[in-house]
Amino acid sequence: METTKITIAGPRGKMGIEAVKMVLETEKFELVSVIDHRHGGKQLHDILNFVQKEVPVYGDARSAFEQTKPDVLVDLTTPEAGYHHTKWALEYGIRPVVGTTGFSNDQLNELTELAETKGIGCIIAPNFAIGAVLMMKFSQMASKYFQDVEIMEMHHDQKLDAPSGTAVKTAEMIQEVRTEKVQGHPNEKETIPGARGANLQGMRIHSVRLPGLIAHQQVMFGASGQILTIRHDSTNRASFMSGVKVSVETVMQLDHLVYGLENILE
Amino acid sequence: METTKITIAGPRGKMGIEAVKMVLETEKFELVSVIDHRHGGKQLHDILNFVQKEVPVYGDARSAFEQTKPDVLVDLTTPEAGYHHTKWALEYGIRPVVGTTGFSNDQLNELTELAETKGIGCIIAPNFAIGAVLMMKFSQMASKYFQDVEIMEMHHDQKLDAPSGTAVKTAEMIQEVRTEKVQGHPNEKETIPGARGANLQGMRIHSVRLPGLIAHQQVMFGASGQILTIRHDSTNRASFMSGVKVSVETVMQLDHLVYGLENILE
Amino acid sequence: METTKITIAGPRGKMGIEAVKMVLETEKFELVSVIDHRHGGKQLHDILNFVQKEVPVYGDARSAFEQTKPDVLVDLTTPEAGYHHTKWALEYGIRPVVGTTGFSNDQLNELTELAETKGIGCIIAPNFAIGAVLMMKFSQMASKYFQDVEIMEMHHDQKLDAPSGTAVKTAEMIQEVRTEKVQGHPNEKETIPGARGANLQGMRIHSVRLPGLIAHQQVMFGASGQILTIRHDSTNRASFMSGVKVSVETVMQLDHLVYGLENILE
Amino acid sequence: METTKITIAGPRGKMGIEAVKMVLETEKFELVSVIDHRHGGKQLHDILNFVQKEVPVYGDARSAFEQTKPDVLVDLTTPEAGYHHTKWALEYGIRPVVGTTGFSNDQLNELTELAETKGIGCIIAPNFAIGAVLMMKFSQMASKYFQDVEIMEMHHDQKLDAPSGTAVKTAEMIQEVRTEKVQGHPNEKETIPGARGANLQGMRIHSVRLPGLIAHQQVMFGASGQILTIRHDSTNRASFMSGVKVSVETVMQLDHLVYGLENILE
Repeated sequence: METTKITIAGPRGKMGIEAVKMVLETEKFELVSVIDHRHGGKQLHDILNFVQKEVPVYGDARSAFEQTKPDVLVDLTTPEAGYHHTKWALEYGIRPVVGTTGFSNDQLNELTELAETKGIGCIIAPNFAIGAVLMMKFSQMASKYFQDVEIMEMHHDQKLDAPSGTAVKTAEMIQEVRTEKVQGHPNEKETIPGARGANLQGMRIHSVRLPGLIAHQQVMFGASGQILTIRHDSTNRASFMSGVKVSVETVMQLDHLVYGLENILE
Repeated sequence: METTKITIAGPRGKMGIEAVKMVLETEKFELVSVIDHRHGGKQLHDILNFVQKEVPVYGDARSAFEQTKPDVLVDLTTPEAGYHHTKWALEYGIRPVVGTTGFSNDQLNELTELAETKGIGCIIAPNFAIGAVLMMKFSQMASKYFQDVEIMEMHHDQKLDAPSGTAVKTAEMIQEVRTEKVQGHPNEKETIPGARGANLQGMRIHSVRLPGLIAHQQVMFGASGQILTIRHDSTNRASFMSGVKVSVETVMQLDHLVYGLENILE
Repeated sequence: METTKITIAGPRGKMGIEAVKMVLETEKFELVSVIDHRHGGKQLHDILNFVQKEVPVYGDARSAFEQTKPDVLVDLTTPEAGYHHTKWALEYGIRPVVGTTGFSNDQLNELTELAETKGIGCIIAPNFAIGAVLMMKFSQMASKYFQDVEIMEMHHDQKLDAPSGTAVKTAEMIQEVRTEKVQGHPNEKETIPGARGANLQGMRIHSVRLPGLIAHQQVMFGASGQILTIRHDSTNRASFMSGVKVSVETVMQLDHLVYGLENILE
Repeated sequence: METTKITIAGPRGKMGIEAVKMVLETEKFELVSVIDHRHGGKQLHDILNFVQKEVPVYGDARSAFEQTKPDVLVDLTTPEAGYHHTKWALEYGIRPVVGTTGFSNDQLNELTELAETKGIGCIIAPNFAIGAVLMMKFSQMASKYFQDVEIMEMHHDQKLDAPSGTAVKTAEMIQEVRTEKVQGHPNEKETIPGARGANLQGMRIHSVRLPGLIAHQQVMFGASGQILTIRHDSTNRASFMSGVKVSVETVMQLDHLVYGLENILE
């Protein structure tokens, strides 16, 4: 078995730390370097004390590419740095796996074209939690057969926005295939306002906030005599790493840019 | 074992039919008569074809009381008929078990006094679903230790009102013991109105409506590191009969009127 | 919009009654006849009192085919009668939608060939509950990304077999794609035998039996930091009809035989 | 409002750290000292870096009692040290709150007598997770009205024993009040052994083990037409602290020893 050589940009962030752990623990992956503009020239164990292996830190992405010749760049930095890293990687023939929601359409178009020209894979994903992505994908598939759907998302009570971004994204994916329908009884009425939740083109979203909750979402489909429920519970950040791992494996097989984890899951 | 002799008023209603079945199937109960103003003089199997036993039908409650000498009246009629039946039963020394939400305070006071004077039991209950009543009782108990609570009630999409009566009743029982608290983050905001549900003194209620659902309620309590959930699923009317059965057994031991099933459950 | 003309074989069975209702309620479907060997020559409202329309009953399938010229045969009879009905229908150029688990491989091969020769669609499905079929399909898809899975199936306490047929079928579909794995801790031990459920190649199945349950199944996938759950609740037979409806629509587009609803859902 | 002065024994343990946090964050509690045999003479912030306040560490419990005069001892050490600390505290008139399962009956009898003689409260609890204790208490209460019950406990796949201690304890509490019953159909059969779970006097327990789970238990009660479910999800150790807090408040009101948190919850 050949190993895949990987460099990670952003190794000190919450996601970055998990990515370092995942790559070090995966037999067929090899961490050849990390990119961290503040710690160029050090060793990774100088900045992450759980690391025992020798892994050089580069302050500059291009030096890391030239000197450690990775197959894949895993980028978990900011949209700005991430854009440059991704572009340079493609130019060097290195396949990027990038976790971000922040690229503009122009940037995405440019990177898509560059990947095309180079004939190599590139994966850009706003969400690497494979379970959450499958929940959204299955919800979209189910909505072809079930017109009635409600979404309950449940989070800790420190969350500011309701509904959650994932709930809105799920609803949008459902709307792409669902025939619009105002749900509930045509004459239903709320005796206390808000009881029936947020109304998104007739679909209802309910946001529960309690201490003790972490991040959960349940999509319920109803039809005469049956309920189909798809639920995802995320209890810690490690859940994202299975998605990064699948992406690294997949990007090696691709010859173009793919946006969104749902588009590489079969 | 002595059997308890029972008469049922309202045997043709949805609840009445279930009550007839339950009494016939319970070994220590004996159905001595039924009261049905439209079918006086007939036999019960003339009006309910699943009945095989001979059970006389009386058009008038007092005749049923005098001629069949029941220990207990199970009344599942209307508030108006039910009030008269209950009063007459107490006067005859017969213990009433009445399913209604419709008695006025004056009527309740009068019946309470009458039961007191006669020194016999009487149970009046708006809800005989023992599981639902336990859900409310446990929720009230839990709210002494958990200040944060949200209620999700889920019903078929033919239901007109949101939130459901049971959800509001549960919230009211919780409020009797809960220190008032505005839940969620102090700065939380709804990007789509209604997402956070109905607000009852800071407690949140969410009403889900889907075909395929029947009648379900879930009460969730949250605290740092834990969630306690109490849920009731009611799938058909038979669920009410366990409450009627417990009430018949209990009313024989009582010497006064009790309102609400929760007050006879230990 | 052109309507699809339908004949139903087995209109008095539990499934047949639901099928009659569904076809009568669907605007683009027309019920042109039913096939019932015991009631040939009558009208459908003679045998099903909720029917108001004139629909002739034929004792013999071929007469129904010749005289009412349906586009589709919906067969909900026995494996034996169903086999003959299906064969005859194909010979008449009528597209069959058949609910059965009882055809032999020889019969299936013969019918497959016949559909091929005639160049028309035919759908044979052991399970028309679209939600249950999607649950199985999604479970199979998810098991590509989650190696750890447990199945909980929950039924009323009158069910004789454990685990249920659907649970075993789900596990078999998962096994087709899942890398075999003995789940749980390698040194785990049962202090009371059976606690860890049925063991199917390392996958665990748990069978809950309680009065008040109907038919429910939950498939749980676990990975570091996340749980993905797919659940189906079936509360009455009407749940099968959405599958029959989709099948009737689909069979009109097909030019060959398809076995299993999962193979027509996208 | 008067504050309650508290000393904590075992401040470096997993539970101890949470207890220190809880006491420091609770307005009406004052942490006057901690007991740690290895660090006597230091300050608490020398051994727990998140502490900012000056809190003296004593290597010996009696010195802590004499010099800092706490109202309550919270002991989260070992059974052996805990026994001595508890005894000494009672002798000094200090009320103990002790988290342990390890005291012998002789030790419990001795401490019960000592608390009696001194006329002060003492709480010894094997489990401080208030939600778990309520789940067990409610389950016992519900089993008076529901004879049919199944327990599902779900834990991470590093757990060695099945079923869990909490599941067995819950079943034992239910058995104290439940009429024994062999559940399921009398002729039910397991086509794969273990499907119906562990059999505890006819009650069934199912143990699910998956990565991504933490510690969860669901108790389901069934009766004709209804299901009552009581569920507890524990996601981290902080869940224990609400029980310690309630215990500290309650022990100030008691004049005798109470064993088990369930006996102080109303």
